[in-house]
Parts: sequence; structure tokens; C-alpha cells
Amino acid sequence: MTDFVLHPQLAADTAMVCDWPLSRVLLMNDMRFPWLILVPRRDGIAEIIDLEAADRNLLAGEIARASAILKRWTTSHNGCDKLNVGMIGNIVRQMHVHIIARRTTDAAWPFPVWGRGHPVRYPASERERAAAELASLCADQ
Amino acid sequence: MTDFVLHPQLAADTAMVCDWPLSRVLLMNDMRFPWLILVPRRDGIAEIIDLEAADRNLLAGEIARASAILKRWTTSHNGCDKLNVGMIGNIVRQMHVHIIARRTTDAAWPFPVWGRGHPVRYPASERERAAAELASLCADQ
Repeated sequence: MTDFVLHPQLAADTAMVCDWPLSRVLLMNDMRFPWLILVPRRDGIAEIIDLEAADRNLLAGEIARASAILKRWTTSHNGCDKLNVGMIGNIVRQMHVHIIARRTTDAAWPFPVWGRGHPVRYPASERERAAAELASLCADQ
Repeated sequence: MTDFVLHPQLAADTAMVCDWPLSRVLLMNDMRFPWLILVPRRDGIAEIIDLEAADRNLLAGEIARASAILKRWTTSHNGCDKLNVGMIGNIVRQMHVHIIARRTTDAAWPFPVWGRGHPVRYPASERERAAAELASLCADQ
């Protein structure tokens, strides 16, 4: 764990939410979609098969936890019709999991969000508020 | 488990490989990418948060197992530079997990495969051979 360093591209594209037992929880800086990223705090992991079985189970639980938090968070915004989960990593190899709350009216529906259009950055104050709201839900749940 | 019925769209797009403790393992009928689909054999599941914790752990293990099988299978074809895993379900709501072996020279790289180009179907004999090879790897591993 001590060797964990967040990839600079992930750091540039996100805001910190909190740390869970396995993963760092990040908010993707793209207002188009309510979008969390989990990064297992393990050194040198690119694929799910690089994780030990115990960490794999932790990750499955944290994906479910992040999914539940996004559903709860979006009830006070525009709601959520579907959750999308992806582990891609074709460009940034440090293992990271996308969890995205989708709406049938969103900018990419029904396609996955990756590689569709361009991110719309949060104004700094809104980004901080969103990250704080999510951190508060993470503490609850 | 007795109520499990595979969604007709998934049935139309895939070939049967085998059944694992939780999931049905299917080969996506698209020669562009070595591509497995896992469908948890549970009724009425759309999201990872709909699964019990024990099933979530089973699923995480089966995703890793499918990943290892695709890596092994592709060593005798063109190799594999990255694995992509996705749970999307925006169109077909029955929960299913995509596991795709990617190459830096493939038709969609570096983008995710979903919604890029059009499937290239296997000739029937090649589809059957590929499904049989994968079933044999599933029995080993």
C-alpha cells in the first residue's frame, strides 16, 4: 500500500472523494455524467487477474458500494436509470474502475460514455460541493 | 436458478461455451475481438447491487477466470495486450458482463469496443471450433 501513487492522468481528471479499505474513490470531473472512479491502492496492478482473491472480493464490494452511493446521490439530481461499470485501461494502465450513473436523456445514451464527446468540467466550487456530498454519502454507507 | 432464461438478444449474438457455478459463459459472435460474456443465472438481476454479496464474490472470481482463459486462448492467436471488462446493459437489461481481449492493432483500439463499427460474424464452423476450444479451457481452469 505504501507504494501507491495515483497516475497523473487520473489525478488531473478527477477530484478526491475518500479512501476505502482497498480503493481510492474519485469523482470524474465531467458534469455530463455522475461518475465515480475506484483505484485499488496496490502497486503495479493493471488487470483484475493481478489482484489477490481477497482484494478481488473487496473490489466487488466497493463497486457495489459506489453504485449504491451514485444511486442515492442522483435521487436529488436527475435520477439514474442504469449503472454502467467498466474496467478499460487501454490508455491509463493503472487499474481503475468506472462507475457511472446513466440517464436515458444523457449525452451518450444508449452508448457507453467512453470516447463519446468531450468532458464538461465542473466549475471549481461545484466540483468541491459534489465531492463533499459524495464523501458524506461514503461516510454513511 | 430454475427461473433463469437467457435474454433472446444475448442468445442471438452469442454461442454457448459452458455453465459455471454462477454464470453462463458465452462467446460473442464477433470475430473482431476475442470476447466472452458472463450472465449470472439468477432471475431479475440488472445491476451488481441486485446480487447477494456471496454471488458478487462468485462473479468477481468468474470474471478473473474468464480473463485468464481469454489470455490463454489468445496466446495461440494474436495475443492480448489488455483486458477490458464492462457491465453496461443500457439496451439488454439482463445483467451480463463483457470480458474482451484487446490488441493494440485491433479494430477499435484504444477505444472500448461497444458501439464501434459492426460485428463480423464467425462462419458457423469457426464459431463452433472457437466455442469448443474455450469450453475445453473452461474445463481445465
